[in-house]
Amino acid sequence: MMAEWKDCINDLKGVVLDICGVLYDSGEGGGVPIPGSVEAVKRIKASGLKLRFCTNETQATRDKFVAKLQRMGFDISVNEVFSPAPAACKILKDRGLRPHLLVYDEVVPEFADVDKSNPNCVVVGDAADNFSYKNVNEAFRVLIGLEKPVLISLGRGRYYKETDGLKLDVGVYMKALEYACDIEAEVVGKPAKMFFQSALADMGVEPHQAIMIGDDLVNDVGGAQQCGMKALQVRTGKYRDETNSPLPVYVRRPNDEKHPTVKADGYVNNLAEAVDGILKHLGE
Amino acid sequence: MMAEWKDCINDLKGVVLDICGVLYDSGEGGGVPIPGSVEAVKRIKASGLKLRFCTNETQATRDKFVAKLQRMGFDISVNEVFSPAPAACKILKDRGLRPHLLVYDEVVPEFADVDKSNPNCVVVGDAADNFSYKNVNEAFRVLIGLEKPVLISLGRGRYYKETDGLKLDVGVYMKALEYACDIEAEVVGKPAKMFFQSALADMGVEPHQAIMIGDDLVNDVGGAQQCGMKALQVRTGKYRDETNSPLPVYVRRPNDEKHPTVKADGYVNNLAEAVDGILKHLGE
Repeated sequence: MMAEWKDCINDLKGVVLDICGVLYDSGEGGGVPIPGSVEAVKRIKASGLKLRFCTNETQATRDKFVAKLQRMGFDISVNEVFSPAPAACKILKDRGLRPHLLVYDEVVPEFADVDKSNPNCVVVGDAADNFSYKNVNEAFRVLIGLEKPVLISLGRGRYYKETDGLKLDVGVYMKALEYACDIEAEVVGKPAKMFFQSALADMGVEPHQAIMIGDDLVNDVGGAQQCGMKALQVRTGKYRDETNSPLPVYVRRPNDEKHPTVKADGYVNNLAEAVDGILKHLGE
Repeated sequence: MMAEWKDCINDLKGVVLDICGVLYDSGEGGGVPIPGSVEAVKRIKASGLKLRFCTNETQATRDKFVAKLQRMGFDISVNEVFSPAPAACKILKDRGLRPHLLVYDEVVPEFADVDKSNPNCVVVGDAADNFSYKNVNEAFRVLIGLEKPVLISLGRGRYYKETDGLKLDVGVYMKALEYACDIEAEVVGKPAKMFFQSALADMGVEPHQAIMIGDDLVNDVGGAQQCGMKALQVRTGKYRDETNSPLPVYVRRPNDEKHPTVKADGYVNNLAEAVDGILKHLGE
């Protein structure tokens, strides 16, 4: 099975990793590392390959998020992590947009430097419990009251997995607001091409020299491939089964690997297996 | 302006009315009749024209809803009103479907006779404040856990007007769940053709002998026209402006009358004006 994708990475110089569902499973208490992932990150760095992280995480500021990962044992620093909120802030400032925020409370500080008075756009992130009817309706009223409604979405994911089960992601509420106002959102974060390009530019490697590893077919695999990168899908993260087992159990949901246009270059059970394959192949 | 549509109704035998936004404006305290509408309904009935009401109202049982309208002074009875919940119940029973309900508490009794154990489908109505993240996520988990997810939606409206402002309607959450599960909902209620056909059959009139009057371009006008009826759009209901004026003020939002494919046969300021025009024309 490995041979299917290993032949594509002969010129490999850089690796881009999704975080949630690849490094760890989120959930109550902040989440738990996926077995083998802490070591896998260390091995990539030790190999001399460049490494960046692309996440659509918008439930915490990048600082807090990275600190959490460090506490789990991951060798990771803030400047290696690309996340949608800082990317959105740049767009807001460049275009003179003043956002009404529909995001998780913890991520509000990322927008501290942005003028939020008299809003002329809406920024929607994964707001989880903040997606109350009242809050979604409020964002809708801001949009419908604008002559040219601008909706910026921090990702377009359908759902993600936490330790207590599947959860609706930002894309679902983006679609809701799109339909309500008959508009199309501008997506920052994965799968936007620009988002992967920033990470590649930061590593100084060409798309064909890089590989993306993620658990989401559209956001991770599709986005990276659109950019000219190869992409592997790992069967962790959203594959995790809801069991009471002390050890995580992952199951394949056929829909997670099926898409009319997107197909991964390879499938691996988890990050450790992917890194094993990559490093063995490079050493051959 | 009237001449534009009156020529189409020479063979008129039946009138179908939308309720919310045509008879009354909903909102705090149950809502208030739109000036002239109580008399307009009386005049239609006195003229000998058949009359039925098609509503996507799913915030109360039909019994309670009609009782409220009667208290406002409307000459209306339960068997004249076509609403989505009873139509959905018939579908559920015919197909052996056991619903998980994501609806307004007050409408749950409409589903009293339906087996809701071990759900194999989701029914979504206008649930307003019940559209919490927790509740929407719960409905999502039911759907994603089914081999063939079935989502039945009591309408596909984008938003409606209450006295305290615009509110997101059922269609927005239907779209959210459709996107989350990559499925298409089955819509009961307006603008479904079958829904208008039931009302026509009940009156015993042909589509070309009937006219629909509503404030929603897609649900009222588009649905009725698809069925072969003529349709007028009234500039009440969602046209109502948010003012503190003791008398209602209605403003035109260009988007409410603009659609790539749907165009009303005529526009009138309110139901009273429509009925005036119709009765004068028929008496000529």
